[in-house]
Amino acid sequence: MKLPGQEDFGHSSAHENVLAEEVDSGLGPGPGPGDPSDTDNGESGISQDPLLFIQLNELLGWPHALEWRETGRWVLFEEKLEVGAGRWSAPHVPTLALPSLQKLRSLLAEGIVLLDCQAQNLLELVEQVISGESLSPELRGQLQALLLQRPQHHIQTPGIRPCRGSSAFRNASHDEDSPLKHQNPLRQKLPPGAEAAAVLAGELGFLAQPLGVFVRLRTPVVLEPLTEVILPSRFFCLLLGPPTLEGSYREMGRAAAVLLSDPQFQWSVRRASDLHDLLAALDAFLQELTTLPPGRWDRTARIPPPKCLPSQHKRLHSELQEVTGLSGRSASQAEDWHHHGQHTPSPELQRTGRLFGGLVQDVRRKACWYPSDFLDALHPQCFSAVLYIYLATVTNAITFGGLLGDATEGAQGVLESFLGTAVAGAAFCLMAGQPLTILSSTGPVLVFERLLFSFSRDHSLDYLPFRLWVGIWVATFCLVLVATEASLLVRYFTRFTEEGFCALISLIFIYDAVGKMLNLIRAYPIQRPGSPAYGCFCHYPGPGGNASEWTSTKHKDTDVLSVHLGLVNASLLSPPECTRQGGYPRGPSCYTVPDVAFFSLLLFFTSFLCAVALKHVKNSRLFPSVVRKVLSDFSSVLAILLGCGLDAFLGLATPKLLVPTEFKPTLPGRGWLVSPFGANPWWLSVAAALPALLLSILIFMDQQITAVILNRAEYRLQKGAGFHLDLFCVAALLLLTSALGLPWYVSATVISLAHMDSLRRESKACVPGEAPHFLGIREQRLTGLVVFILTGVSIFLAPVLKFIPMPVLYGIFLYMGVAALSSIQFMKRVQLLLMPTKHQPDTLLLRHVPLSRVHLFTAIQLACLGLLWIIKSTPAAIIFPLMLLGLVGVRKALEWVFSPQELLWLDELMPEEEKNIPENGLEPEHLFSRNDSEDSELMYQPKAPEINISVN
Amino acid sequence: MKLPGQEDFGHSSAHENVLAEEVDSGLGPGPGPGDPSDTDNGESGISQDPLLFIQLNELLGWPHALEWRETGRWVLFEEKLEVGAGRWSAPHVPTLALPSLQKLRSLLAEGIVLLDCQAQNLLELVEQVISGESLSPELRGQLQALLLQRPQHHIQTPGIRPCRGSSAFRNASHDEDSPLKHQNPLRQKLPPGAEAAAVLAGELGFLAQPLGVFVRLRTPVVLEPLTEVILPSRFFCLLLGPPTLEGSYREMGRAAAVLLSDPQFQWSVRRASDLHDLLAALDAFLQELTTLPPGRWDRTARIPPPKCLPSQHKRLHSELQEVTGLSGRSASQAEDWHHHGQHTPSPELQRTGRLFGGLVQDVRRKACWYPSDFLDALHPQCFSAVLYIYLATVTNAITFGGLLGDATEGAQGVLESFLGTAVAGAAFCLMAGQPLTILSSTGPVLVFERLLFSFSRDHSLDYLPFRLWVGIWVATFCLVLVATEASLLVRYFTRFTEEGFCALISLIFIYDAVGKMLNLIRAYPIQRPGSPAYGCFCHYPGPGGNASEWTSTKHKDTDVLSVHLGLVNASLLSPPECTRQGGYPRGPSCYTVPDVAFFSLLLFFTSFLCAVALKHVKNSRLFPSVVRKVLSDFSSVLAILLGCGLDAFLGLATPKLLVPTEFKPTLPGRGWLVSPFGANPWWLSVAAALPALLLSILIFMDQQITAVILNRAEYRLQKGAGFHLDLFCVAALLLLTSALGLPWYVSATVISLAHMDSLRRESKACVPGEAPHFLGIREQRLTGLVVFILTGVSIFLAPVLKFIPMPVLYGIFLYMGVAALSSIQFMKRVQLLLMPTKHQPDTLLLRHVPLSRVHLFTAIQLACLGLLWIIKSTPAAIIFPLMLLGLVGVRKALEWVFSPQELLWLDELMPEEEKNIPENGLEPEHLFSRNDSEDSELMYQPKAPEINISVN
Repeated sequence: MKLPGQEDFGHSSAHENVLAEEVDSGLGPGPGPGDPSDTDNGESGISQDPLLFIQLNELLGWPHALEWRETGRWVLFEEKLEVGAGRWSAPHVPTLALPSLQKLRSLLAEGIVLLDCQAQNLLELVEQVISGESLSPELRGQLQALLLQRPQHHIQTPGIRPCRGSSAFRNASHDEDSPLKHQNPLRQKLPPGAEAAAVLAGELGFLAQPLGVFVRLRTPVVLEPLTEVILPSRFFCLLLGPPTLEGSYREMGRAAAVLLSDPQFQWSVRRASDLHDLLAALDAFLQELTTLPPGRWDRTARIPPPKCLPSQHKRLHSELQEVTGLSGRSASQAEDWHHHGQHTPSPELQRTGRLFGGLVQDVRRKACWYPSDFLDALHPQCFSAVLYIYLATVTNAITFGGLLGDATEGAQGVLESFLGTAVAGAAFCLMAGQPLTILSSTGPVLVFERLLFSFSRDHSLDYLPFRLWVGIWVATFCLVLVATEASLLVRYFTRFTEEGFCALISLIFIYDAVGKMLNLIRAYPIQRPGSPAYGCFCHYPGPGGNASEWTSTKHKDTDVLSVHLGLVNASLLSPPECTRQGGYPRGPSCYTVPDVAFFSLLLFFTSFLCAVALKHVKNSRLFPSVVRKVLSDFSSVLAILLGCGLDAFLGLATPKLLVPTEFKPTLPGRGWLVSPFGANPWWLSVAAALPALLLSILIFMDQQITAVILNRAEYRLQKGAGFHLDLFCVAALLLLTSALGLPWYVSATVISLAHMDSLRRESKACVPGEAPHFLGIREQRLTGLVVFILTGVSIFLAPVLKFIPMPVLYGIFLYMGVAALSSIQFMKRVQLLLMPTKHQPDTLLLRHVPLSRVHLFTAIQLACLGLLWIIKSTPAAIIFPLMLLGLVGVRKALEWVFSPQELLWLDELMPEEEKNIPENGLEPEHLFSRNDSEDSELMYQPKAPEINISVN
Repeated sequence: MKLPGQEDFGHSSAHENVLAEEVDSGLGPGPGPGDPSDTDNGESGISQDPLLFIQLNELLGWPHALEWRETGRWVLFEEKLEVGAGRWSAPHVPTLALPSLQKLRSLLAEGIVLLDCQAQNLLELVEQVISGESLSPELRGQLQALLLQRPQHHIQTPGIRPCRGSSAFRNASHDEDSPLKHQNPLRQKLPPGAEAAAVLAGELGFLAQPLGVFVRLRTPVVLEPLTEVILPSRFFCLLLGPPTLEGSYREMGRAAAVLLSDPQFQWSVRRASDLHDLLAALDAFLQELTTLPPGRWDRTARIPPPKCLPSQHKRLHSELQEVTGLSGRSASQAEDWHHHGQHTPSPELQRTGRLFGGLVQDVRRKACWYPSDFLDALHPQCFSAVLYIYLATVTNAITFGGLLGDATEGAQGVLESFLGTAVAGAAFCLMAGQPLTILSSTGPVLVFERLLFSFSRDHSLDYLPFRLWVGIWVATFCLVLVATEASLLVRYFTRFTEEGFCALISLIFIYDAVGKMLNLIRAYPIQRPGSPAYGCFCHYPGPGGNASEWTSTKHKDTDVLSVHLGLVNASLLSPPECTRQGGYPRGPSCYTVPDVAFFSLLLFFTSFLCAVALKHVKNSRLFPSVVRKVLSDFSSVLAILLGCGLDAFLGLATPKLLVPTEFKPTLPGRGWLVSPFGANPWWLSVAAALPALLLSILIFMDQQITAVILNRAEYRLQKGAGFHLDLFCVAALLLLTSALGLPWYVSATVISLAHMDSLRRESKACVPGEAPHFLGIREQRLTGLVVFILTGVSIFLAPVLKFIPMPVLYGIFLYMGVAALSSIQFMKRVQLLLMPTKHQPDTLLLRHVPLSRVHLFTAIQLACLGLLWIIKSTPAAIIFPLMLLGLVGVRKALEWVFSPQELLWLDELMPEEEKNIPENGLEPEHLFSRNDSEDSELMYQPKAPEINISVN
């Protein structure tokens, strides 16, 4: 959609978005040495300047023990030396008192300003500086000696882990090889080409007049002992004066350092030609200051770095506005626009109008990248990505295999799951349009298959042949969808649809996990004290009969029970032993085992809570981030291992995962190829078209929503998407897996996003207080391929899998449902229903839409969900994909209830609505909101995918 | 201790502290109508001014539909109208652009400033304002009409819960009874006497010149439609001008409102006599601004209100310094001092030098308050306090009674616990020096009693008579301690000692809770599938004997098991039934019940996790705060109820709490009075002095540390403490409970703090963004007395208690240990050991002490704890109180390892160390830290008691 007055900005939004983020980082020319692709934006002059490291040296100890001491440093944020603790403070936003800035201005206005100074070292610099000062020769000598004195630097002890990737960087950088460089961890975080600035401030008793000096060196030189980090210095600032006001030179020094750390001021002062330019830059800085009133904010409080820096782009814009007279509203709304639209249509989603036109284009586009899809994988990062995704895939295969085997009575078990995952995944990675996608069993298809199986069982059908025909029909329908470029309709799936989809599937997961646990408890009844008796004994037939023979069978002394009990025709032998000896096990407990029910419940809760807790370790402050990441990433694997360990330790007969002992299908008596008819009547192959239609809808929705999420602009993919090709591949593989009786596979959102995440390229140098900077994704086919080959090899691990207790898998299943449910915005809005107004978060949604309208939207979603759940609970459950599609209709009907603006905030817009907005004219909100730019910082926060559409 | 240069400030620190906090609130004359005791500070002129409500009305809709609209309001913080959402934003710290302040200044400098305007209503005011302006008569009329136009106010719908206590306030305030007042929730939050200020800003096309007007009314009048809240207005500010720069009048209006909301500016402008004073006040405001650089902070980001406002006191101070030339260091260090010292000695801790001198003084001091101790309780708040503390006390009595009965094999069970709590608690409330204290069984005494019991069992002593003698001796020793005023030694118990004490007891709790659960599991063995058989059957003696008789006993058809099994001399009758019919229950499972072990484990974890989760509900955003508070406060009760419910639902034979069926001691065969010798030799009454010495140490430490915490200056107690009297009462009650065989009681920290907390008096009006403001505690004896009388009555509830399963109590026990352990600073430092430097919190400790020294201190504490644990595990365990006292010695020895400054931050100082510091001279830290006031904001944060010294 377009908001009024934004025509001038609308087209290039995607590009500007990228640009804005590049500039936002404030890091200047972020690219690492080996990434030519990142230097493609040369629009903004600011980003071309080298990064500046600024150090404040204070003169302390007047009058007896004068020494310079480094007490502060800046790159993006301020770090203060905690003198007592001997450490650098956490990086924080520098706060200044306004008078110190004003004093600095007047000191510089009357002081010495040398622009393009030609000094080659500190001595020359000091001589040039002092020559301008009217001092007696002795004092001049004293001052020179003082300025040449080596300052006390606080160098942090090595051993502190440098920022991620910086070791690679160290090898690449080839300037300055002094050993000291390797001892200062900060040096390793600064990008090559960084320059230094030194600010010297303090009180000096023998000065009669304040002395303010600002020097810009024509060519930066290393002013050897001055700065902690050995970098060529560009700026030098000296602020000395007689001791008058407490600490005022220190504060002026801080002000100078903060000024120099401002990108806009730096840009201006690098280009300043005289004192006038310098002061103009300072004044421009003053004009842009944010001020906090003294009564409501303590100047000395430390503000942690904001999540995202203000956009330099925006600062340029505001200057641009003043020049060109552009209205602020249109500019801010244009920004609004490129950050709000989620489904910005990719060029891949343009209609060609020809049959299979989209598919042909997809193939053509991907073909030229094919060689690079393998060459680009030659990077060590890909190894760790393979390991991570392999473990996730195997966990998935085990869980879904276990569940599917459970739900379809072994028609597809764990072995099929492994085999199918390996075959389908590898084939997809080789052929697909978006090879970063990981094919997997997903929640919706699992739910459908479960319903399909109960349907075929209720009607006494031969399941696998019936399923084969469903597969054949689905493939046919999908081919039609590919031919007609139906993937373009994906823009009608707004967040409303996605969330309905996700919430229903998640709820089914939770319901099923709990239901399965309850069934298990029913199968192992709890024995209450009131029940007449419990236990099992071995009954020997015939009263009093061969008692002698019986007592003679007690072969061991350990078998004391049957010896000393004095029983005539009964013993406490265990059932198998009893049968072996010719008796009959009798009693209510012979085939049930006590304790299993509660132990299973314990395993269930343990694995669930363990997975939840480990997932949250990521946000903990304890442990290095590597450890936290591993624990969090492998939370499911670790939870399963813990459950298995507990189970093995106690050795109870809990129900375990069913695994065939050899390499053959789990269902006894079937081969790998499914016969096309089996015991079914011939017309069933035609009738299968009906469920196939439903499954096609489901697969189309599941596959395409995932594909759109993966190909979002935020990920900056270079090689383009392939929506039509992907759907084609999925359809082909569905046919194959149906014929082999393997599970069905669709692109899985979460695991694919994890795959992309593990292949992120980030800026290697991260300055204190700054988060690493996203550069792109290593797009290639090799990691996925290797993952699935490894999964195939893991089939031989199958015998180990039979030690996994089912309650543990149910616990993980529950965790998946809960995690998926809690990840959607819908749940946050449901929480709003229970939250007092005062405690509601300050979100953009709540700033722009009345609370009652938000609640109404949530209530409608809840009602839809309730309706879906009711349908799911009736015998007509199998038509639920049609109902999911019905959500699109409901969403369309919402246009009558909500205004387009409200829908824009609550959901996204459908294609027609976007066209409608300009005709609607201004809504009351827009009439009064002159200051929409208040939202700008929130707008610029990097987007994370909000949805776990597939539960996997 | 005293830091150098603070002599001028040191003495009156307690008073200044209170004053500073009063002034900090920014609320002005906080006291409610009925609290004359709070108006005792008249030092600061600022706090005398009424609170100001400021409203910004913007002129919108130029040129066609001019209207005034309220778009912002201020009391302490800014609330912005979210036009789209139709709600007020969350209160936030206002941020301004510097140019808007400067433009405002120049507009006012050239505008109309009317100080002490005599207008009686809006019309008069407008006429006076306009008369000064050079406009044509038509324009003047237009302007006047515009200014009299009723602005659009955003009144929030009623139904929003007003701030706590405000309903009481509403009844008390007797000015303005208009019905509208009751509809605006903000009105109810403003204290009586509050005044309003209206700022009108906007662009007006027909103006040729900008129009700036500032009016101070001599007597505030209600300018009827102007402000949302009907309050007499004191200030009126009009900022209009031709439309030039986008939104600049809006921003100037905001700047004017923020200025007026600053207490210092307000103070000056209320006293300004001309334009010059006004501008001087504005300039003073500018000088104190905090500024944030534009490149590192987005001006439009909203900063939530700080936890504590900057001290106006400090702002006055800094002005004072400029005037008097006081060094900033001494002032800030003086502030440092009154906030850091924790054990500021109360006047009650002054040595008299006479035998029983302290006790006599305590009695004398408390006697005069005695009548008011009952009259002060006549307040509805006391009812809810009674309910809350009653439930907590009963929960405690049940848990500790259950545990003590368990540990001492019924020597004191639940009944004794109830009886003892009621008798001792009520007596203490009537007699004690600090009647807010709640007497309770505490962890250390429980641990000691457990050890004493095992000792007497190991040596075959008659426990209760032995215990009686211990009690007699302890009372004697305590009397000596009271006589010698030993309570003054409490200042040697620094945080090091307290934390060692607390950590050891907590660990014992955790260890015991887990140990008891494991014992329980051992008592109900888990039956593995490998074990030969399980179950129980009924054996009829004599092989084949009276089989006919046997089969004839099957009296019911439901008893199918014995009918159809065809057994000769065995049946599956339950053990009691079997015995009744003349058989013998045989088999390994006759007296154990399956499933109980795991179910108990489930109950244990459920009650533990439930208590933890409910405790954390307080920090949730969901539900109104009342609901959250109830859930959190009653977490233990609710967890116990949940556990009982689960247990009752499943009806398993879990072990339950042992409760006598009638009102008699739990131990069978003893009367209520313990005989002084029993089966023990006579000399044991002398030997009991040895354990009594240990117990005296323990009781002294436990009682006095709690007493010091309760009597801290932060709580602003008016009626004084009674350390000697309290110890005397505890000793007397100990004698009584020993004679009756009831548990021993000492003051319990946590429950006493909860008692005080439930009796807090807080400011009734709390302005948006401000936390309620602490005024004091309702000090009286009645609530405690009623609580214990109710506890006494609850003895008749005892029969209900036998439904409480023991695993639930163990779970609560574990929760107590974990909660106490995690509440101490020591644990936070242990976490630091595992935390990467980057993620460490920005605490004062870490700002001032090198990390390695912090780790060393933590390591020494860990070592001490390890040593204590080892001693506790040997047969010499009973001497652990002596070892706890040994911690004082270790702490003394730490003086050789750490400097006094380090100890000041890591711990507290002992009396001698405080004297030592000035002689030590300046440490390097103090040489360089000129800016110690950076810590000031953190210093001013209200102190919460850091320690749960008693686990209860």
